[in-house]
Amino acid sequence: MTEVQRTERTTPRTLPSRASSDLETIRAIVDEALCCHVATSDGGFPRIAPMVHGRVGDELVLHGSHKSTLLAALARGAEACACFTLIDGLVLGRSALHHSMNYRSVIVFGRAREVTDFEEKSELLKRLTERVVPGRWAELRPMSPQEVHATLVVALSLAESGAKLRTGPPIDAPSDVDGPWWAGEVPLALCAGAPIPSPDLPAGIEPGPSVRALALRHAPRERTRAS
Amino acid sequence: MTEVQRTERTTPRTLPSRASSDLETIRAIVDEALCCHVATSDGGFPRIAPMVHGRVGDELVLHGSHKSTLLAALARGAEACACFTLIDGLVLGRSALHHSMNYRSVIVFGRAREVTDFEEKSELLKRLTERVVPGRWAELRPMSPQEVHATLVVALSLAESGAKLRTGPPIDAPSDVDGPWWAGEVPLALCAGAPIPSPDLPAGIEPGPSVRALALRHAPRERTRAS
Repeated sequence: MTEVQRTERTTPRTLPSRASSDLETIRAIVDEALCCHVATSDGGFPRIAPMVHGRVGDELVLHGSHKSTLLAALARGAEACACFTLIDGLVLGRSALHHSMNYRSVIVFGRAREVTDFEEKSELLKRLTERVVPGRWAELRPMSPQEVHATLVVALSLAESGAKLRTGPPIDAPSDVDGPWWAGEVPLALCAGAPIPSPDLPAGIEPGPSVRALALRHAPRERTRAS
Repeated sequence: MTEVQRTERTTPRTLPSRASSDLETIRAIVDEALCCHVATSDGGFPRIAPMVHGRVGDELVLHGSHKSTLLAALARGAEACACFTLIDGLVLGRSALHHSMNYRSVIVFGRAREVTDFEEKSELLKRLTERVVPGRWAELRPMSPQEVHATLVVALSLAESGAKLRTGPPIDAPSDVDGPWWAGEVPLALCAGAPIPSPDLPAGIEPGPSVRALALRHAPRERTRAS
């Protein structure tokens, strides 16, 4: 078990029992999250944007248009914060105060580096695509050099990061437990519907294994209480 | 249709065709999002936290512990940014560059105000609970004055906000459309599993209508292409 070293910024102020610095836990949450939220405070105020990310080793990979204000700030090395949030369920206590969510989240602080080397950039874009839809790269029209150049790619280290997790039932006040109020958890998960072909798709082209696997990866399932 | 006035910060730099300032659209996204991400740059660097929110009129309601670094900064009136993101589907083009997400997002900028009036605070906490689980308030042990005092509540206006939305199939390069690559959309939605009673729940207490309604609100469903 490798631990990320805590800093002033990643030391939890509230609920330290829910915090984890375990690198495997952090990597797993980053990999499962479909997208993340990234903030900079370039210009004197915070700005958040949702972004699709990749992970290569212990670096996050972010990409987008050269016109994006936030991505340009990241490329200039502005202080950044990225947050990954998986919602696993609603926690419904007997009182409003003991309502909560079951979640797994990661926060990352640092300054990104712009990736300018053509080969590295191409590889990171491939790895980003493959993280979101494993196997998809091989089913695509290969990326052109122009497309690689048109994309701004930055990498942000996980060196200063931490996770927070909550699982299990509500923790009610002992004096409430024998009361007449229902308490428990309602599990939540992201589910996929059936693939919808593009209206301009020529007849006879079926979705490849990577697309069919998405439906399985995000299938609705009955979940039981975590042990 | 009421439009929120655009400012320098809410004027989109990229893809203006996806931007909306329609207040009804903004409210609907805020209300549907289970949680939001809030950032401040108190201390000279951005910090994001996921938060459960309410909406009362055109103010967001955020709450938490008095010990929370971020919430304390909000209460002091620090510059803040809140972001709401609903993921509606993966958009799978014929090339990596034309992969995208279908989403509805809202960004809000401003300085929050701390809510200190006891009656207003109680009402906002009720409305927050009711936004997440409509009908739940009436099924709970009433909130005690101590619990109201123990909670930090801030309100953030939607006056400086904007939405971004993407729907529909991939938009591929015309030269790729006749190629052999599958393209389309995979719809995604948050689904609820069956309620799991707390291990300490006395026998014979069944979930109320608010809990049963969650399963219907977040039911898996086959979705068809938006018209």
